[in-house]
Amino acid sequence: MALTEFSLIKQFFADATQKRQDVIVDIGDDCAVLSCPEDSNIAISIDTLVSGIHFFADVDPYTLGHKSLAVGLSDLAAMGATPAWFTLALTLPELNENWLSAFAEGMATLAAEHDIQLVGGDTTKGPLSISIQVHGLVRKGAQLQRSQAKSSDKIYITGTLGDAGAALQKRLASWQPEILSEADWSFLTKRLQQPTPRLAISQKVLPYVNAAIDISDGLLADLGHILTASGKGAKINLDAIPLSPSLKKIDRKRALELALSSGDDYELCFTVPAEHVPAIKALNLDIQQIGEITDEQQIVLLNENGQPSLLDITTKGYDHFA
Amino acid sequence: MALTEFSLIKQFFADATQKRQDVIVDIGDDCAVLSCPEDSNIAISIDTLVSGIHFFADVDPYTLGHKSLAVGLSDLAAMGATPAWFTLALTLPELNENWLSAFAEGMATLAAEHDIQLVGGDTTKGPLSISIQVHGLVRKGAQLQRSQAKSSDKIYITGTLGDAGAALQKRLASWQPEILSEADWSFLTKRLQQPTPRLAISQKVLPYVNAAIDISDGLLADLGHILTASGKGAKINLDAIPLSPSLKKIDRKRALELALSSGDDYELCFTVPAEHVPAIKALNLDIQQIGEITDEQQIVLLNENGQPSLLDITTKGYDHFA
Repeated sequence: MALTEFSLIKQFFADATQKRQDVIVDIGDDCAVLSCPEDSNIAISIDTLVSGIHFFADVDPYTLGHKSLAVGLSDLAAMGATPAWFTLALTLPELNENWLSAFAEGMATLAAEHDIQLVGGDTTKGPLSISIQVHGLVRKGAQLQRSQAKSSDKIYITGTLGDAGAALQKRLASWQPEILSEADWSFLTKRLQQPTPRLAISQKVLPYVNAAIDISDGLLADLGHILTASGKGAKINLDAIPLSPSLKKIDRKRALELALSSGDDYELCFTVPAEHVPAIKALNLDIQQIGEITDEQQIVLLNENGQPSLLDITTKGYDHFA
Repeated sequence: MALTEFSLIKQFFADATQKRQDVIVDIGDDCAVLSCPEDSNIAISIDTLVSGIHFFADVDPYTLGHKSLAVGLSDLAAMGATPAWFTLALTLPELNENWLSAFAEGMATLAAEHDIQLVGGDTTKGPLSISIQVHGLVRKGAQLQRSQAKSSDKIYITGTLGDAGAALQKRLASWQPEILSEADWSFLTKRLQQPTPRLAISQKVLPYVNAAIDISDGLLADLGHILTASGKGAKINLDAIPLSPSLKKIDRKRALELALSSGDDYELCFTVPAEHVPAIKALNLDIQQIGEITDEQQIVLLNENGQPSLLDITTKGYDHFA
């Protein structure tokens, strides 16, 4: 890393996040050196956001800083890990101090909420893209894996689904039902641009969960990963899928399609054995039981009378190369 | 990560590297989960290579795969860490299977030499760039830091300097002295495209070293990082700087300028207290003592008669934003 680049990272990012006791060597050496507690393993995930693919080039840099980190934190939540450290590889077309300052602030604000420290990075010149690797700690043996869903497990999701997808449709397809107010669009846009990583819920349900994933590509696609990895299927009650007050205003079929197939909500989907359902209920969390795991390796969507739905699912999540 | 992307990573990369016992959850979940030995800390470094900045768009993908990983391994060597795991965030303009296959092979071949396993990644569509994060293990308290150089430490470097810079000059500036043969250019180009991370030397000298860095931006720039971090200066004997047989053929002043100021050699620069010099010599390694640490916070270049050199150093390493 050349001197100016190093100074750049140092200037905008090095002191943006709080200092943790387990960081032995911080930003500014060939490597960061990190200490892992003896009772824990390290969970890591890397994600890249590319301008024009994952975000619009004119996006507010504060929200971009938030989202870039939120995506990784959501992976830690899905694994049952608590956040510890992250690295940032930032490729920028030019040095724009206002942009960098806002980007760093959005990232740092979310980092402070979750006690995660920036410990290294690389800054290069090129088309705008952001790679962040998050590192979390998970008690040995306690990690939540996609492959551990068992038959008759109840399927839960956090929050509401389809909100981010609605905001994206507005921008991409100029889809803008008149019934939605400015306040609705403001809410939906915030859901797209500043998703909430469900770390608090993840830590509370951790002892009761068999399998988990975060919903970045749509419920059907991501639940599909659990089912494939576990060799199982699922029944989903469409009426149980939680929709935000904003999404409830639009055509129900369209709202359900967004909830099932659009990505970027970064809610969690997890499965819980029937015997732990009372314990889960007692936690009083913003979660919803939407169905259960089955032996047949397919997803069956049930409408209000318990009959298979004829809902036409045309997309199954986002694929860059399709 | 959408299904096709996941399959892509899986197809070309998941089995490219050997399996380690300390990988608890491998590629294919929200996070990889890794086990750290109780006596060690984890050393991490992330680097991005962007097409047109760090490599030519037409570079051989096999050598690009090698170099992308070598850059990170060199950081682990500079920290005194042994390689363990890496992640790959790959942004590609298109799916070119031949390209991917060669890239993966170059990367996997180097990975096999150093027992490092690919444990996660992300593949996105966009302008070609490669971010790799490496993770190594370093015994608690044994890491080599830039800040630990002491006055009168002897300064060592591995291998030879300036070779990669010469190959880059040929390509960038059409600089091609007639005295250099095809074999010379082949050697110099290999030094640029497939640098050797000095992990074996690093592990052997580790017990005797105070401070270390890898030379990615040129000896003066990178030694400068050690001096700044340690609050010290250095005297360098220009005659002691090791040049390859190929570089010895060209004008000596030009060769020394390349050795001092051009990057991409990925050799190590490290400092050793005088009392450990006999132990270092007894190791019989491909290393060279080139000077010593001083209290005056400057770099003094000495020519053959021990007088300060008038060598005109115009560049001090590579800066993307200069």
